[in-house]
Amino acid sequence: MPTVKRDTYTPDSLLSVAVRVFNERGYDGTSMEHLSRAAGISKSSIYHHVRGKEELLRRGISRALDGLFGILDEPAAREGRAVDRLEHVTRRTVEVLMAELPYVTLLLRVRGNTDTEVWAMGRRRDFDQRVAELVKQAAAEGDLRADVDARLATRLLFGMINSIAEWYRPERAGAGAGPGAGAGVLDASAEVADAVLRTAFAGLRTG
Amino acid sequence: MPTVKRDTYTPDSLLSVAVRVFNERGYDGTSMEHLSRAAGISKSSIYHHVRGKEELLRRGISRALDGLFGILDEPAAREGRAVDRLEHVTRRTVEVLMAELPYVTLLLRVRGNTDTEVWAMGRRRDFDQRVAELVKQAAAEGDLRADVDARLATRLLFGMINSIAEWYRPERAGAGAGPGAGAGVLDASAEVADAVLRTAFAGLRTG
Repeated sequence: MPTVKRDTYTPDSLLSVAVRVFNERGYDGTSMEHLSRAAGISKSSIYHHVRGKEELLRRGISRALDGLFGILDEPAAREGRAVDRLEHVTRRTVEVLMAELPYVTLLLRVRGNTDTEVWAMGRRRDFDQRVAELVKQAAAEGDLRADVDARLATRLLFGMINSIAEWYRPERAGAGAGPGAGAGVLDASAEVADAVLRTAFAGLRTG
Repeated sequence: MPTVKRDTYTPDSLLSVAVRVFNERGYDGTSMEHLSRAAGISKSSIYHHVRGKEELLRRGISRALDGLFGILDEPAAREGRAVDRLEHVTRRTVEVLMAELPYVTLLLRVRGNTDTEVWAMGRRRDFDQRVAELVKQAAAEGDLRADVDARLATRLLFGMINSIAEWYRPERAGAGAGPGAGAGVLDASAEVADAVLRTAFAGLRTG
């Protein structure tokens, strides 16, 4: 049987192509034909890997959610004063967003009505809710100012964090290809996380 | 000549319908047919008001831009220490975003390649640039912390402000319809602006 190109995709590499196309065209605007062209393999080869595009959406979003919920299980997110746990979760959320940029971008853009999209929006709300609980607890412990509503503070904090996906592009962050590029991404991620922590928790004003 | 419905639209009321449809369906996904159906008047009636959908886009975006650039001409944005001017611009940007929500939402979502979209993205960059200059000047005057890069601080500040468009819905903010509703919107706007200023400039931490 003839194929467009020999199918050497792994589940992860096919997912990476699909998520890129979803982010470029929007999930609704992406057909199996678009995925087939972007991957350079036939539609039937794609069906060999997955049941359809919704499975690719679910896998892409799961990767983002696994990274984000994984943060909440880290010791520094579970032990200590709420404000310190909140700062840890904030830093790590920035790091996961930047390390898993295409997958988190996909999660953040989900708006639709398929089962997978409804599920993704629910899981995202669960994560926001867990962070909102930390904000409330930190305020109750007297470590966060009382004159900003906890729900509003959480929204503004996520507004700042999630906006990073709008402008951060890893290819610009590193010092080009080669051994230094990976370290460049890590440095950028630490610098951005520091800036978010300083802005949100200590404030930009000096005096 | 028969029409779908008597055309009683003013330029402003037709624009309001068009911007709502653009925000719901995306500008690319909106046809003159969609606009005709949403407005309840024929396409030729719409062409009586405007040359086409791109003119409606340009008018909608102009309304947002006029509000935003108007802020920079206010006395409190032009006189005094840069940090105080910056705080004024931040507060007023939140207020304009909330008062002109559909129009600013349209501006924030623009991504495309038509002349109008390219122009809108350029004007938005100009506005961000003007605010970035204030951030730089305030840092140079020693009023903003030196360990957060001015460009990054500006991006995080706008990330926080622009994210308000994702969740703020005026109909939920007021105490229902009637004489109180307008005041409700004003109160919500002041509360959110206070929260943004406190978070970004003073920081959420107490001690």
